[in-house]
Amino acid sequence: MGDSKPVSVGIVGASGYGGVQLVRLLMDHPGVKVVYLGGDSSAGKPFSDIYPHLSHATDLVIAPVDPEAIAAQCDVVFLSLPNGLACEMTPTLIQRGCKVLDLSADYRFSNLETYKAWYGGDRTDGDVAATAVYGLPELYRDRIKDAKLVGCPGCYPTASLLALAPLLKQGMIIPETAVIDAKSGTSGGGRQAKTNMLLAEADSSIAAYGVTRHRHTPEIEQICSDLAGHEVLVQFTPHLMPMVRGILATVYATLRDPGLVREDLATIYKAFYRNCPWVTILPNGIYPQTKWACSSNMCYIGIEVDQRTDRVIVMSAIDNLIKGQAGQAVQCLNLMMGWDETLGLPKLGFYP
Amino acid sequence: MGDSKPVSVGIVGASGYGGVQLVRLLMDHPGVKVVYLGGDSSAGKPFSDIYPHLSHATDLVIAPVDPEAIAAQCDVVFLSLPNGLACEMTPTLIQRGCKVLDLSADYRFSNLETYKAWYGGDRTDGDVAATAVYGLPELYRDRIKDAKLVGCPGCYPTASLLALAPLLKQGMIIPETAVIDAKSGTSGGGRQAKTNMLLAEADSSIAAYGVTRHRHTPEIEQICSDLAGHEVLVQFTPHLMPMVRGILATVYATLRDPGLVREDLATIYKAFYRNCPWVTILPNGIYPQTKWACSSNMCYIGIEVDQRTDRVIVMSAIDNLIKGQAGQAVQCLNLMMGWDETLGLPKLGFYP
Amino acid sequence: MGDSKPVSVGIVGASGYGGVQLVRLLMDHPGVKVVYLGGDSSAGKPFSDIYPHLSHATDLVIAPVDPEAIAAQCDVVFLSLPNGLACEMTPTLIQRGCKVLDLSADYRFSNLETYKAWYGGDRTDGDVAATAVYGLPELYRDRIKDAKLVGCPGCYPTASLLALAPLLKQGMIIPETAVIDAKSGTSGGGRQAKTNMLLAEADSSIAAYGVTRHRHTPEIEQICSDLAGHEVLVQFTPHLMPMVRGILATVYATLRDPGLVREDLATIYKAFYRNCPWVTILPNGIYPQTKWACSSNMCYIGIEVDQRTDRVIVMSAIDNLIKGQAGQAVQCLNLMMGWDETLGLPKLGFYP
Amino acid sequence: MGDSKPVSVGIVGASGYGGVQLVRLLMDHPGVKVVYLGGDSSAGKPFSDIYPHLSHATDLVIAPVDPEAIAAQCDVVFLSLPNGLACEMTPTLIQRGCKVLDLSADYRFSNLETYKAWYGGDRTDGDVAATAVYGLPELYRDRIKDAKLVGCPGCYPTASLLALAPLLKQGMIIPETAVIDAKSGTSGGGRQAKTNMLLAEADSSIAAYGVTRHRHTPEIEQICSDLAGHEVLVQFTPHLMPMVRGILATVYATLRDPGLVREDLATIYKAFYRNCPWVTILPNGIYPQTKWACSSNMCYIGIEVDQRTDRVIVMSAIDNLIKGQAGQAVQCLNLMMGWDETLGLPKLGFYP
Repeated sequence: MGDSKPVSVGIVGASGYGGVQLVRLLMDHPGVKVVYLGGDSSAGKPFSDIYPHLSHATDLVIAPVDPEAIAAQCDVVFLSLPNGLACEMTPTLIQRGCKVLDLSADYRFSNLETYKAWYGGDRTDGDVAATAVYGLPELYRDRIKDAKLVGCPGCYPTASLLALAPLLKQGMIIPETAVIDAKSGTSGGGRQAKTNMLLAEADSSIAAYGVTRHRHTPEIEQICSDLAGHEVLVQFTPHLMPMVRGILATVYATLRDPGLVREDLATIYKAFYRNCPWVTILPNGIYPQTKWACSSNMCYIGIEVDQRTDRVIVMSAIDNLIKGQAGQAVQCLNLMMGWDETLGLPKLGFYP
Repeated sequence: MGDSKPVSVGIVGASGYGGVQLVRLLMDHPGVKVVYLGGDSSAGKPFSDIYPHLSHATDLVIAPVDPEAIAAQCDVVFLSLPNGLACEMTPTLIQRGCKVLDLSADYRFSNLETYKAWYGGDRTDGDVAATAVYGLPELYRDRIKDAKLVGCPGCYPTASLLALAPLLKQGMIIPETAVIDAKSGTSGGGRQAKTNMLLAEADSSIAAYGVTRHRHTPEIEQICSDLAGHEVLVQFTPHLMPMVRGILATVYATLRDPGLVREDLATIYKAFYRNCPWVTILPNGIYPQTKWACSSNMCYIGIEVDQRTDRVIVMSAIDNLIKGQAGQAVQCLNLMMGWDETLGLPKLGFYP
Repeated sequence: MGDSKPVSVGIVGASGYGGVQLVRLLMDHPGVKVVYLGGDSSAGKPFSDIYPHLSHATDLVIAPVDPEAIAAQCDVVFLSLPNGLACEMTPTLIQRGCKVLDLSADYRFSNLETYKAWYGGDRTDGDVAATAVYGLPELYRDRIKDAKLVGCPGCYPTASLLALAPLLKQGMIIPETAVIDAKSGTSGGGRQAKTNMLLAEADSSIAAYGVTRHRHTPEIEQICSDLAGHEVLVQFTPHLMPMVRGILATVYATLRDPGLVREDLATIYKAFYRNCPWVTILPNGIYPQTKWACSSNMCYIGIEVDQRTDRVIVMSAIDNLIKGQAGQAVQCLNLMMGWDETLGLPKLGFYP
Repeated sequence: MGDSKPVSVGIVGASGYGGVQLVRLLMDHPGVKVVYLGGDSSAGKPFSDIYPHLSHATDLVIAPVDPEAIAAQCDVVFLSLPNGLACEMTPTLIQRGCKVLDLSADYRFSNLETYKAWYGGDRTDGDVAATAVYGLPELYRDRIKDAKLVGCPGCYPTASLLALAPLLKQGMIIPETAVIDAKSGTSGGGRQAKTNMLLAEADSSIAAYGVTRHRHTPEIEQICSDLAGHEVLVQFTPHLMPMVRGILATVYATLRDPGLVREDLATIYKAFYRNCPWVTILPNGIYPQTKWACSSNMCYIGIEVDQRTDRVIVMSAIDNLIKGQAGQAVQCLNLMMGWDETLGLPKLGFYP
């Protein structure tokens, strides 16, 4: 950056949890200036009416969502909207020269038929969608550097794929044995008032949901297939946890080579992620806690091999709203702008 | 019971969480009278010094643990002690004519070599151990009715086995594909002051522990093998959850017959548990929440089949301290005494 | 009860938290039979669709709310509705011979002008309201025994008044110095989907609300004034806590006689509540924890005197949904029916 | 700082919660370099053995505590030790030219007799203690700038005093009416394994503790007296909350001038804190939530006046480990070094 002018950034959907994370991270980021916050349902309100704890930090007012107006003000636009909305405004933003980072599912799929099968709706933006890059830097760093449109990964796919990638890429597991048992804090459900997300319902309890049917399944499978070089189906089961932030993915798979031990895999993981500042492979016998990742952009990975059953168990922990969402989007921005991948991102989680 | 004299009951290890649950349940039980509370570390203290919320209910004082004295007062003795202690006093209690329900691991194994391999220690009570019955009434009801010594199951095995039993008994799954991903509240760790169990460490976080090595593994495998009719190994991974009570076991296995659908399995489960008042098979699409089970003796089971992957996913939820521990012990007592299996046990959980 | 026919009971507003507590308590109650569950928003649904954890216990279907139909089936009706609805149907129910226990604010005020000032709305049921008794048995036991219509207290007033009553009745404090700092679990807000009640918002946080303006203020003041024999104003501040159940009221007041010590007050409290099975005065130096009260109908009270400041500090803990709501209503029912005050109510809280 | 050499910093007691917060904050601080971590109980261990989530950030090993060795390496020393230990090593550190910031109670009292009355022990470091400054920058900024030894405030006093200071300084309240009802997360109790701090005990519950006797009482009173210009006694009651981080202090006091309204007080508070970047006065009707402050160094203050009772109610929320402990110490360091008061400190809390 040096003496260069900060990049002008807009955030559409600022009033949700993804939005407030982006606001928080980008206001602390040395390379950008947040110039626009947008959202239809809260248009006209000062942002600090919605999040009073940031009243000392900003007097921005939420604006109605108008792609032309956004493009006139912003070099880069983050879209943090419900699925099916980003695809309506992105073509305009791209055409006007904005770089776009979309946090919804709209630009995560290389095959729009898959998107439509799991998310529904029509899509008329196939040309634009074809230029989108999947925003998981640990796997697609070089493509993200050159991208104008990034489809940022879902929270569960981020945790799941970082746990599975080295195994699939190196062909070390039998892919169809992969079981992903994932546990998430409730903030992943967003800031919508639903009965099952009330503290009185969700506290002191855990349950699975979307079993066999969660929409993150095809997203995980798309990237797993890309890594494996052939189509891969996985068993993915998310659970709702009695806590706000954090995802733990516990991944099980059968090893092709039963002679492999924990240390072999640790070596492979460390090599695979050697240039990745946001992945930490934990020492032998140490398993990741979601609290460690909370408020940082780090993904912690622990590895175990069960020599009785020939299975590998990989556990990955992230903050679902940072590495699983807003932080990863900023990580992608850093790459797109040619900056250091860690710029402006929290490296050290608050603990306890 | 009618006009008959209540059964005199003693609880050894009354100051722990298993103990206080037993005290609470047995004081409300119409067939028994709690006449003795024992514990070496708190001997001499009124029980209500340790649990002041029960001060209106009992003025019993905790006594030193002396098997002869216990046998002189009690018809039935519940032992809620760390592993390796019950086996020292049980022979005396049995010899003096007491019925014994042990909540530790000491009498869960039909093969003491397995016990010694996973728990260590010497065992000189092989004759007595050979008479012990595994206290899971849904599987061993008739044997429990005739038992003088019951080794009550661990909390994780209870949830895991109730989820798996119909599948194994009917040969519907490939046993070696079974993965049990279990999540427990921290009360399962007992009332010991450990740093990792502090609220400041364990709240708002989840992590796996004992991966590939947890001592409940051989207990689960012993019963699975008994059900399947041949040796079965399972993958069992426990997780520590940010909540006090409850276990959810999410169990994955590959179906032998990929044509089976969810309704087939539901029918089989309902038939298998048709005489079991403490198991509820949930309707299609409903998955168990641990909160539902909290404070009751019920086990809730949800079933799903993934026709893309030919896997069955079974979820079971219990209160780890009730159906997973003290409540199940009382359920066994009811059977041993010829009473209704539900006598004195909480049927309706407090919700929310 | 003996061989007598069980009392037929209806619950209107069964789908809320008050409702499900009543269902649970009354289904376990030996003197009654729940014959009717009503609620307009969920009419036509099986109760177990809303609360699947009770599917083994009931197949009642929620009926539309029709006072005539209710009166035709029920001897006793519990109304658990938003404020302003009970007063519309109660006159009919009373006229048809039902006994009515209302859990809303509609029948808590002896002066309907106070009700209207704080709750708004018109009231045309003054004659019926004049017959209502305030359902706090520890203060108004005899009147409740003879009542046909009971206005059950709010959760905060229950905790606050049980803490303050002996002091005010005996004239031991300067009433205008009373400060009530109350902390409640979020279930007190009911089962409505509001953003501020989401786990993601309310967990790991505490805040005051309704400061100087909460509607339980006039209710507390009405009873305090009755106890003191003159008008009393109190400072009441509620806080929302990151937990589901429980209220702790910490009450501060200046003693008239600075020579009084803790033991004097304990003696007075024990005498005041000597016939009250649902109040426990804790020993010296023991302060109530809300968890102790959780799932029981008990109110725990701790007392401290600060001889440096001449203040008494009284702490009371209840389960807001039991002693603070549904349990207390059942306690009133017991009195109205001439039964033992403890019949069918949980005496021993689940801990931990 | 510019091109100047970073200040060498040591942290004694690095393995506790205060320690790990200091490590985290100071590693992110642009003006310092952490060169020494000390602690007797964990001497010889890599810091990342204790806090594996920081393994990517540091390979410092915890050293035994030797004041001479510390002074040889460090310009500034933070002491985060149990009470009564800092006073043993501080004289040596000061004599060797170190600046010292002590997070214990040892240097908070201008009168060592008060310290000894509430904390016990002998003190032979009177001369050094006399040079200590109370490290609450909002009240003692200028003195801190010139200090060589700062006694950093307790967490409860920080929240309580920031709420009370403008009222006392301006003589707006009757001091003896002040009641401070404070609620804290359990991390305030430190990283010691105590039964009552277990998640299984402390979750889903609230209770008061140390009523009339908590050691932060004299600390609060000392500063209140300084502000008022005469001796002030306050009623201070702490409560343990079911959450990790955060303190809310709800402060009640009777106004001298009953004509004052909320807006008058807000104006006075804003003027009082006009140069204080770490205090935010909230708008009318907005009350602070502890979650807002979590992970930042901000203190949020809400104000309400009850015109029925002539009382002011002030609510202040902080992160007990940041503004209430380690962050405030860093804020003091910034002042002592002539840096901007906000340097290196988190301004924007993570929410939710």
